[in-house]
Amino acid sequence: MPFPTRATAFSPGSIGNLGPGLDILGCAVEGAGDSVTAEFGDMPGITLLEPGHESLPSDPEAHACAIAALAVVRAATHTGATTPAAGITLRVTKGLPLSAGQGGSAASAVAGAAAVNALIGAPLSRNALLAAALVAEERVAGRHLDNIAPSLMGGIVLVRSLDPIDVIPIPVPDGLLIVLASPAQRLRTADARAALPDEVSRAVALHQAAQVAGIVAACFARDLPLLGRCIDDRIAEPARAALLPGFSAAKRAALDSGALGVSISGAGPTAFALCDTEAVARSVATAMCRAYDEAGLACVARVTRPDRVGTRVETSGT
Amino acid sequence: MPFPTRATAFSPGSIGNLGPGLDILGCAVEGAGDSVTAEFGDMPGITLLEPGHESLPSDPEAHACAIAALAVVRAATHTGATTPAAGITLRVTKGLPLSAGQGGSAASAVAGAAAVNALIGAPLSRNALLAAALVAEERVAGRHLDNIAPSLMGGIVLVRSLDPIDVIPIPVPDGLLIVLASPAQRLRTADARAALPDEVSRAVALHQAAQVAGIVAACFARDLPLLGRCIDDRIAEPARAALLPGFSAAKRAALDSGALGVSISGAGPTAFALCDTEAVARSVATAMCRAYDEAGLACVARVTRPDRVGTRVETSGT
Repeated sequence: MPFPTRATAFSPGSIGNLGPGLDILGCAVEGAGDSVTAEFGDMPGITLLEPGHESLPSDPEAHACAIAALAVVRAATHTGATTPAAGITLRVTKGLPLSAGQGGSAASAVAGAAAVNALIGAPLSRNALLAAALVAEERVAGRHLDNIAPSLMGGIVLVRSLDPIDVIPIPVPDGLLIVLASPAQRLRTADARAALPDEVSRAVALHQAAQVAGIVAACFARDLPLLGRCIDDRIAEPARAALLPGFSAAKRAALDSGALGVSISGAGPTAFALCDTEAVARSVATAMCRAYDEAGLACVARVTRPDRVGTRVETSGT
Repeated sequence: MPFPTRATAFSPGSIGNLGPGLDILGCAVEGAGDSVTAEFGDMPGITLLEPGHESLPSDPEAHACAIAALAVVRAATHTGATTPAAGITLRVTKGLPLSAGQGGSAASAVAGAAAVNALIGAPLSRNALLAAALVAEERVAGRHLDNIAPSLMGGIVLVRSLDPIDVIPIPVPDGLLIVLASPAQRLRTADARAALPDEVSRAVALHQAAQVAGIVAACFARDLPLLGRCIDDRIAEPARAALLPGFSAAKRAALDSGALGVSISGAGPTAFALCDTEAVARSVATAMCRAYDEAGLACVARVTRPDRVGTRVETSGT
């Protein structure tokens, strides 16, 4: 079968650390995402023609998309798949904001991995693609799959294990709406990770485990109130809230407006709120923006829902 | 409605700490259990006519069954329910071994609470009964519901919160079999709890949370291999295995014989193994007993399954 000459992948943004699910539970989000177009080119290796944002490096060794693409080529070579002698060019279109906590680096990595995999005849399994994207995420953000896995697979995904990779799709309960509120502030992922405690008390660990397990039960049982009760993170949120002015007030405002549960999306600064009706979601979005505004921070909020599809790939030229 | 003159409750044993679910996930087990018969008597208060075992106290303040029974009467009085001026007598039949890690104290507490509640016209809600049994469990074993909740409700139960009580029934996957292997050794619950670490690393906490959540997903999705992979406890088992000679060898023998997953039941010394066929379960039981025997410990093993019913109550004399 001849290779296609071009492959484009779109990968949605995602909420990592879904509430208490630090590093282990994430949810793909409908709407914004990153696209990567991969084509064969004359330059050997991976060439990043368009990094997607002026702040992003054009050095392929430093851009999540290209790191993941290279990892795909290497893994394909290891599996004995025929890969082209020629090089591959990448063009990235960033639909997700940088350093926002909306899974942008993961989306670029996943889209890069998926586009290149499609270009070379799709030799890699799903878990091999996750592993390739993880190489990139580890380099730019941290070694966790809670953004990568939902960005590739869609929906809500539990990451049971990284070694070996074991990811578990969790059903998305009908009617679940998501408000993403992004205040105009920056929190570097490295700083957000540095704020995490190295140790937690046994009581906190057990409470946190019960909440993550409760989220999974709520999703299977379609119990949105239970889902809301389980958005109770005692590890990451208390450590990071202090770095995010306005968050606590925005959370309170969202809960007062009827949100089921509220926490920090990924490493922040974006906050997410889970809601069960459009009307509630809209008033939650307004309330969160007002709270950030009162804290002196402009805020953009959108009402969306879980993305159930994950990464879409189109090829041409076969 | 007149009160019955007698109520008998049977409560099954249970596996607490179902693998990584320390204090938060338990499973009722078919077969052995404790029975309590409550009747009105002339002596005021609660009188324990038969404590159920020569090693158990006949002082009602020190016996799980009577402590729970008294908590039921108190809670009923608080709710304004009419309770009899006369006293209540209790007779306990212990079907569960003492200090074995099979949920015996919880079963006695639950049966005591359920029998007395039925005797006085069933004024208490499920959660109020759990709270009454928890008063007893806290006094004799520790403040956790992971044996009490399944012993009352049947099946597998996730304890999301104690304050307020929030317990989540998890579906029992068809075909799940349990081997309980009880070596002839004693491990006091207090010593088993003292061995637990007060703090755990963040990595361990997140891994543990992912395993508990994975068990819940596996039960809903009826994925027994996944359930087995999630029986990976990095908090309690490593701390307690050192106190339980023979356990590590028995675990290895069970896994080599095809068990899906193996860990310590409750605070031990009973070990449990999850299996997916009768034939495997029988060979696992044999292998575990042989391993304990080689460690110089007699062992009794039984093949059973989750109890889906929980506490059964019969009344007479209405």
